[in-house]
Amino acid sequence: MITAGFYQFHPKFGQIKKNLGRVISALSSVTADVIVLPELPFTGYLFKDRDETFELAEDLQNSPTIERLSKLCHERDFYLVTGFAEKSRNKVYNSALLIGPEGLLHTYHKLHLFNTEKACFDPGNLPLKVVEIRGIRIGMMVCFDWAFPEVARILAIQGADVLCHPSNLVLAYCQQAMTTRCLENSVFAITANRFGPDTRNHGEITFTGQSQIVAPDGSVMYRSLPDREDLFITTIDIEKARDKWLTHKNHVLNDRRPEFYEAICEGKNLPNHR
Amino acid sequence: MITAGFYQFHPKFGQIKKNLGRVISALSSVTADVIVLPELPFTGYLFKDRDETFELAEDLQNSPTIERLSKLCHERDFYLVTGFAEKSRNKVYNSALLIGPEGLLHTYHKLHLFNTEKACFDPGNLPLKVVEIRGIRIGMMVCFDWAFPEVARILAIQGADVLCHPSNLVLAYCQQAMTTRCLENSVFAITANRFGPDTRNHGEITFTGQSQIVAPDGSVMYRSLPDREDLFITTIDIEKARDKWLTHKNHVLNDRRPEFYEAICEGKNLPNHR
Repeated sequence: MITAGFYQFHPKFGQIKKNLGRVISALSSVTADVIVLPELPFTGYLFKDRDETFELAEDLQNSPTIERLSKLCHERDFYLVTGFAEKSRNKVYNSALLIGPEGLLHTYHKLHLFNTEKACFDPGNLPLKVVEIRGIRIGMMVCFDWAFPEVARILAIQGADVLCHPSNLVLAYCQQAMTTRCLENSVFAITANRFGPDTRNHGEITFTGQSQIVAPDGSVMYRSLPDREDLFITTIDIEKARDKWLTHKNHVLNDRRPEFYEAICEGKNLPNHR
Repeated sequence: MITAGFYQFHPKFGQIKKNLGRVISALSSVTADVIVLPELPFTGYLFKDRDETFELAEDLQNSPTIERLSKLCHERDFYLVTGFAEKSRNKVYNSALLIGPEGLLHTYHKLHLFNTEKACFDPGNLPLKVVEIRGIRIGMMVCFDWAFPEVARILAIQGADVLCHPSNLVLAYCQQAMTTRCLENSVFAITANRFGPDTRNHGEITFTGQSQIVAPDGSVMYRSLPDREDLFITTIDIEKARDKWLTHKNHVLNDRRPEFYEAICEGKNLPNHR
């Protein structure tokens, strides 16, 4: 049994220190093994353009935000999976970071960018990878990655127990789709969404909350309200994620027939079917 | 616009002629382009063993059932996708057949066998393949294939407009999972389930009805009751399945990153993660 959960809140655009302070304060007396934060929880989401994204993003090797979060993890002895606007030389990624008492442990760059993110971020360039902490195998994915069944599948094949899923959701589909992801892979998923609007001169987007934890049988263990701050921590039995038998004779991973799945891995230049 | 639908009914185990008569009678005055029947609608499902399955299965080249269905398709000028217990030399497959006015057009052998089917059938040995009829691209999958996102994905990559999905469902998960399959691939799906029990000396299974048609946005257009005969035909706009844009900038297939998906196509001998 481990304790895991998320913090759903309303980041204020561009106010990195204030948002960081909010997170530190909310988590300052929490006991847990793993806590998931939303996508881009420090910068906010609705960047004007790539230049502004780059300006607000931080370098992993020189980030006061990561330093402060590492200190929090050390003080509270927990691990965080958090969204992060990451710059690296001339690139800028919509990232998820795994941070623990020992500092930054793993970085994932969102592979599937949503909508206007394509104008602000570079597409992810790193393979999906499961990282083990305290005997828990963490798979990291970011927001719109939910729409691509390949992501959760690959993390499950690598042995993930828990999909940690920082999100800034605007569409209504993700929460239900994640129940399918959990069932088909027999994994837990913690989707940490933000709520409230990002209001800028060039537009406004309102995020939909409803952060959730889903069990390996696809059942929703808990779901937040759409518009309230919510810190939720629960115990989860990761052994349930390691039992991959959907029936006595059906193993969700070993019953796969990869010899018939080649089309999934072939080049992306598909014929135009229209 | 095409007209398509399904026939949900209660086949009686082992009574091939009677079940066939039931189907012929139900469809004798129907006008449609495509009608989907359940999995194994003529033999029934709960075989005692492989020998019994083999005994009740028919050879594609010598099947009174296929001949009669072809005649029906010719008379009514429609296409059927139907489950079928198929024997081929010393093999026996849980198949889906596409039959039209011109006869048998395509055969699919269920790739992912459910539970005790593993003792009665050989696993599918043919690649997934989309077949075009009257400008409609038909993808065929059988029942438990729903649990493997790879199946619907591959059919969508091949250009399927409509997933025709003969089923004999006993678990409660499929109907919701199919809404995710449709959304993530922007395709229609027609799941034709049977209802009622198969009661044999060696056991009983009750099937759950709730056949459904799902639209490319994941919405359920229609769902049958769990325990009633139901012939349902509707119009569907296949152009909706050809619009793969989930947002102005997100194409559900072209946004895939197959260069990162290799693990899905690799050998099935996974490490034991326990």
